[in-house]
Amino acid sequence: MTERPEGTEIVFDPEAQPSVIAEALRGRHPADIAAAVGALPGEKLKSVLAELDAELAADVVINLDEQVLEDVLELLEAPEIADIATELPSDDAADVVGSLDESRQAEVLSALAAEHRRDVEELLKYTDESAGGIMASEVVFVHQDATVDRAIEVLRSAADEIDEIHNVYVTDSARRLKGVLPLTSVVLARSGTKVENVMTPDVVSVTAETDQEDVAELFERYDLVALPVVDHAGVLVGRITVDDIIDVIHEEADEDISLMAGTRDEELHEDSTLRVSRIRLPWLVIGALGGLGSATVMRYFQFSLEKVLALAFFVPVITAMGGNVGLQTSTIIVRSMRTERGLAGETGARLLREWRIALTNALILGASVHLIVGFWLRDWGLAAIVGGSLAIVILVAATLGTVMPFALRRVGVDPAVAQGPFVTTLNDVIGILVYLGLASAFIDRLT
Amino acid sequence: MTERPEGTEIVFDPEAQPSVIAEALRGRHPADIAAAVGALPGEKLKSVLAELDAELAADVVINLDEQVLEDVLELLEAPEIADIATELPSDDAADVVGSLDESRQAEVLSALAAEHRRDVEELLKYTDESAGGIMASEVVFVHQDATVDRAIEVLRSAADEIDEIHNVYVTDSARRLKGVLPLTSVVLARSGTKVENVMTPDVVSVTAETDQEDVAELFERYDLVALPVVDHAGVLVGRITVDDIIDVIHEEADEDISLMAGTRDEELHEDSTLRVSRIRLPWLVIGALGGLGSATVMRYFQFSLEKVLALAFFVPVITAMGGNVGLQTSTIIVRSMRTERGLAGETGARLLREWRIALTNALILGASVHLIVGFWLRDWGLAAIVGGSLAIVILVAATLGTVMPFALRRVGVDPAVAQGPFVTTLNDVIGILVYLGLASAFIDRLT
Repeated sequence: MTERPEGTEIVFDPEAQPSVIAEALRGRHPADIAAAVGALPGEKLKSVLAELDAELAADVVINLDEQVLEDVLELLEAPEIADIATELPSDDAADVVGSLDESRQAEVLSALAAEHRRDVEELLKYTDESAGGIMASEVVFVHQDATVDRAIEVLRSAADEIDEIHNVYVTDSARRLKGVLPLTSVVLARSGTKVENVMTPDVVSVTAETDQEDVAELFERYDLVALPVVDHAGVLVGRITVDDIIDVIHEEADEDISLMAGTRDEELHEDSTLRVSRIRLPWLVIGALGGLGSATVMRYFQFSLEKVLALAFFVPVITAMGGNVGLQTSTIIVRSMRTERGLAGETGARLLREWRIALTNALILGASVHLIVGFWLRDWGLAAIVGGSLAIVILVAATLGTVMPFALRRVGVDPAVAQGPFVTTLNDVIGILVYLGLASAFIDRLT
Repeated sequence: MTERPEGTEIVFDPEAQPSVIAEALRGRHPADIAAAVGALPGEKLKSVLAELDAELAADVVINLDEQVLEDVLELLEAPEIADIATELPSDDAADVVGSLDESRQAEVLSALAAEHRRDVEELLKYTDESAGGIMASEVVFVHQDATVDRAIEVLRSAADEIDEIHNVYVTDSARRLKGVLPLTSVVLARSGTKVENVMTPDVVSVTAETDQEDVAELFERYDLVALPVVDHAGVLVGRITVDDIIDVIHEEADEDISLMAGTRDEELHEDSTLRVSRIRLPWLVIGALGGLGSATVMRYFQFSLEKVLALAFFVPVITAMGGNVGLQTSTIIVRSMRTERGLAGETGARLLREWRIALTNALILGASVHLIVGFWLRDWGLAAIVGGSLAIVILVAATLGTVMPFALRRVGVDPAVAQGPFVTTLNDVIGILVYLGLASAFIDRLT
């Protein structure tokens, strides 16, 4: 009854008989069981699941890590998977069936009861990224002319089938959504009250095609725990619950971080070295090609470098600064686009803001580096070139970091790509070009 | 009644009289109103709020963007703020009061009714990052010996004060948490049923000191919409709702992205160029110092560079690759630490995995760059040095990217810092050291 911080761990002997392990698991939360059995070898896990009653086994399966789930599904026969899917709400059932290859999907679907099969088939039509991809078909609804007593009856018959009920939806005879009845209203309404008189008529809904990020946005804006899904005629077809929205929010954040880091969270589930390598390699190739581009630029200015070798020493300062400023700028632009917190505005306005900031930092860093290099090498001409180039590179990188996300969005590419290695690499090449170009222009003052 | 994708925007003439604007806002959702009035000048916004009824005005205020909220609060007198806080649930009231400076906090608190003041004062004690910082004091609870009819009475009297009720908590005479009664159970239980007989006795709870990230973890694991908070004696002191958890999840993701980009989302609310510059500058200084470190290393190898200038051309390839590999590796390590998806494991095991991946990429990239440089410059000795160094730098960067997060965690620093510019910069310096060191060792073969 007290706090449950660590106490959620279930301890058992992994070498024990499946029935003994199942005994240790009984009565625990499916999420905790899933965490505990996830480390078992596939065949053992399968045997343990077989020892649990069907409903609990299904709840455990849907809580398994993606990779473990895939492994288990591979060991199960189609009818066994159908048994699991039968116990699950339609959205989870669709996720399980959807993760199978097409021939097995058909086998499992044909083993499902007609009604459940229709629901799952319907849900499988939607892409993962849409409201349809995260909604469940099971909804509790009553006719607008019904009384709250009828709503309670409907709830009673649905309570077994649906895990989390937050609202009773109110529809007309054609099942078109007309309002929503939060459970509190059901509890508090006097017996005999007409649903129409206590429902909230102004209900937020989405269609199954709505992008899941837009759905998440609605949950956040209106602090929702559930959201009804309707078709184009306004007919109620399902509902989305907040736990699925939390997954969507995580996915979004992961996407951003992945783009910035040049790898994907999926690799966490990947044991094959070659496959992980293949996930990471494209970003490294971009970096390598960019580096060779920089090498080409430097070779072009070979004459200047031969005359003043010290110019080469400061190439890493220039590239580091271009990369960092470009990343800071593009990240802030992308995030302001996403959150649209006033600052999204027009490219021009954003550019002015970023230039003001970049100019400040360019002056501070340019002057500091100028002084450091000057006192260090006692070569004030070189110091001026390095400091001046650094300032210019900061301004150029800020410009690129601002313009790129807008440009990418205009051509239909996710602006978040601008936070990735592509822009950093481009900044490297341009930075060296500016630096050595400037140095070559003033090379006679240096020698 | 249909979908509400764009239709949430409220259009009004910002030049109109406050009473006219207020008329246009009436009946709309507070979140939509907040979005619509956020762009008004402070004084105008204040006048419009004064035209709305107190409860709606409070709901609008709490939905304003952080920066707009601060601006409005500065224009309001302490009693006006107290009026708003009175209409808000205790957690939102505490957020409003907590955002004021200390002397105004005291003024506003003294203007609050005794009970509400106690709640708010209590909540202000907790840090922003704890369960106490996001919980509300208002909870619906009944004694375990009560009947569900009593639970309905309690709900009825609480319904006005509490916006979102998902559960009735069940306590003993000392208000110690004994169970939870989801609203569905309240609806479905027969009149006269004892609460004890229909409650779920196994209820997950946290103490007010629990870190908010651990709280979010529990919401995710158990698909919760609300979570009770107890003190160390198990006494019910508040509850946390899922909408606040969504904010926590966003904050976490933002922190990661900020660390990676070297800037913070807060700057989006910041109009002062100098202050934004100050947020970004530290990361740039790290980059600049690292760059000067690289310059020192290159100067140390001046002799080799003078002999074979072409060595300098490939410094950007080396630094780009070290940075990218280091970032990929540290990001994956940090994320696996966070999600603990099986792979968290021991430093040693992780290192082996990362080395396998790095070795694969090192061989592919090293060989490719070797061939490209060889055919390009027709200097196979130089090509071998560049390709070989690149491979070594990839292995070193992967090692650093793996070890740093564990090392940071051991000394009590957030491992996510390893994703920031610090490690990238360190990789630059080490990469150049390896490259030019190797080149100098074989310099006689090159000339």
